[in-house]
Amino acid sequence: MIVQSYLDMLKVKSAIRELSEWSTARGAEIGYENVFDYSLGNPSVPCPPQFTQVMIRLLQTAEPVALHGYSPTLTLPSVRQAVADHLRRRFGLPYTAAHIFMTAGAAGALAHALRCVVAPGQEVLTFAPFFPEYKPYVEGLGAVLRVVPPRCQDFQIDLDAFEAMLNPNTAAVLINTPNNPSGAVYSADTLRALADRLRQASQRFGHRIFLISDEPYREILFGGIEAPYPASFYDDTLTCYSFSKSLSLPGERIGYLAANPACEHAEDIVPMCGQISRGTGHNCPASLIQLAVAECLDLTSDLSVYETNMNILYDELCRLGFTVVKPGGTFYIFPKALEADSVAFCEKAKRYDLALVPGDTFGCPGYFRMAYCIDTDKVRRSLPALERFVRTEYPL
Amino acid sequence: MIVQSYLDMLKVKSAIRELSEWSTARGAEIGYENVFDYSLGNPSVPCPPQFTQVMIRLLQTAEPVALHGYSPTLTLPSVRQAVADHLRRRFGLPYTAAHIFMTAGAAGALAHALRCVVAPGQEVLTFAPFFPEYKPYVEGLGAVLRVVPPRCQDFQIDLDAFEAMLNPNTAAVLINTPNNPSGAVYSADTLRALADRLRQASQRFGHRIFLISDEPYREILFGGIEAPYPASFYDDTLTCYSFSKSLSLPGERIGYLAANPACEHAEDIVPMCGQISRGTGHNCPASLIQLAVAECLDLTSDLSVYETNMNILYDELCRLGFTVVKPGGTFYIFPKALEADSVAFCEKAKRYDLALVPGDTFGCPGYFRMAYCIDTDKVRRSLPALERFVRTEYPL
Repeated sequence: MIVQSYLDMLKVKSAIRELSEWSTARGAEIGYENVFDYSLGNPSVPCPPQFTQVMIRLLQTAEPVALHGYSPTLTLPSVRQAVADHLRRRFGLPYTAAHIFMTAGAAGALAHALRCVVAPGQEVLTFAPFFPEYKPYVEGLGAVLRVVPPRCQDFQIDLDAFEAMLNPNTAAVLINTPNNPSGAVYSADTLRALADRLRQASQRFGHRIFLISDEPYREILFGGIEAPYPASFYDDTLTCYSFSKSLSLPGERIGYLAANPACEHAEDIVPMCGQISRGTGHNCPASLIQLAVAECLDLTSDLSVYETNMNILYDELCRLGFTVVKPGGTFYIFPKALEADSVAFCEKAKRYDLALVPGDTFGCPGYFRMAYCIDTDKVRRSLPALERFVRTEYPL
Repeated sequence: MIVQSYLDMLKVKSAIRELSEWSTARGAEIGYENVFDYSLGNPSVPCPPQFTQVMIRLLQTAEPVALHGYSPTLTLPSVRQAVADHLRRRFGLPYTAAHIFMTAGAAGALAHALRCVVAPGQEVLTFAPFFPEYKPYVEGLGAVLRVVPPRCQDFQIDLDAFEAMLNPNTAAVLINTPNNPSGAVYSADTLRALADRLRQASQRFGHRIFLISDEPYREILFGGIEAPYPASFYDDTLTCYSFSKSLSLPGERIGYLAANPACEHAEDIVPMCGQISRGTGHNCPASLIQLAVAECLDLTSDLSVYETNMNILYDELCRLGFTVVKPGGTFYIFPKALEADSVAFCEKAKRYDLALVPGDTFGCPGYFRMAYCIDTDKVRRSLPALERFVRTEYPL
């Protein structure tokens, strides 16, 4: 018999998806090049040519039975070793292959990380604004997601609000830096303070609260800044990474979970992931893709277009009078809407062929997200539409 | 805090894995070519060259942003259409793209199929001997796996034993034909009788009991037989397929779930799979691999070696006095051990460098499995060891 809970989920429409569908439908009317579609966070630049070259070389030269053979349950040892070496070199933590589990993107990494440290009925805290898929990730294992209110002046963490929500049933805290949708990069001060509160709470409640750090935007940083590495601040950290954005491979579903070598049961996390996989049908990411990314760990796509687009949009939004925090990375910007009801605001924007996502989707009403992973030409062409929208709907 | 249930799972060792590790260790002593390793069900023949050619062509000619882009939540429409066309042509059921969901192998398909139709606390029935991973698949969603005793004379279904175990809490029945480990192919009579009992029970209990049909060995058939297609016998069937064996791609994690167009909520199954994916981190199989298999649906690897090996082993096992059902397909054979304790039997076999898996692993003590997906030369070379083992340990 059909399971009602999943059937019920079909009734809830994703605002982002609906907006994307609107963009497609509107594109069919006026030409998609004339729809200023800021709805979806899909990379717009190609993977590095080296990735393609590695893939072709593997296909042409490796023995097919070995190349396409089963990964061991804990994923390919050579790939885990390469990732550990990369992370150790880059962030100075003593990772070994024993701490690395290759996953089907960040989604797979988060699904495993959450199941490792959160039991059904326990709570996970995250911070608004947040990626809306965190809710099904957490609820999918029978746990509860609770959302700490945003600190809108800079989209860092409201520590007092956070402190107030920590409780004995808190199993993990889920962060995302650089952040979707705000573009904020957590500062060292933020991460240090977060770690302090977590250590105090872990001691107070008598169990370790894990930090799960979702980092698919780690390589997309602006203005030459470096993003502090969350696991360096807090031992009990599980880092979740995806190559979707850094190598522009979202469809190939490849990422990893890295357990901080100083975390509780550090040597058990990866074997636990192997067990978790058995119950969710995840098993391993595709062997060939694992092998190929292992040779591209120090590469990224040419990500500079995102910074170009951000600067154009940020300047124009400021000029038009928006309150907006300048993103430190990602390909998102999260300005304050020009009326309290951001759903109404984004609905009006559609009249100007602008697809903007209301902040409500991210637990942060009153704001809106623009995903500027699109051609710079289109960003430029969208500016007159944006100005007309603002001047017409919100005259001074 | 670490979740104890997964930590506890680490204490349970897989008999197959331990045996495979023994084979590897023994191989380090005497040369792996001298270990007659019948432990693992890994394809031993290469993928068809066309698969490699398609992959290289896609990498060389397709636009990378599109090629490696996100699949839609319900997986790639062109690929779903190709699979539906293939199944419709081959089995005559009116599949459309709406009934197909691409998955990370059969494991992914089973994980989705089970979650679609089995709620936590409900029961799934399967038939001994059975693939041991069914247990974590079912328990992973909080349901209970119950095992119908085997019908050892032919490894078809003991219908009376099955009937006796059906109850109002039975949500689904999980079959595997051609079967791992027995090599049995369910006959049309078996499937017809099974379907009759399921229809009667569904009516009696007032809810549809789903049939989940796991078919990774569909293309590996011996003696020119055709395997009846389970979904043709029972409307409420979810078919789970993997290309791991047919195209020798186990590491690439690619398969599909096909909902019988006549099943309950047939149009909702695939959208439900999309929702289930959100909670398990499965998302889609790799886009590139989806696209490549869609061009290889009517191909298989050269699978003839498995039949050659089966015949050699079957004849020798008969000659040595084993009671053994001749496999109709797969790359497994499941003879009766020469003593009641098949664990002891397989332990003794190791003295002759034979790696045999006790039937206990498959819910069928007193038997043992040989996975003959190895070189024919090695199969031949193993025969003297098998004879010495039998003559020495079990003299007449």
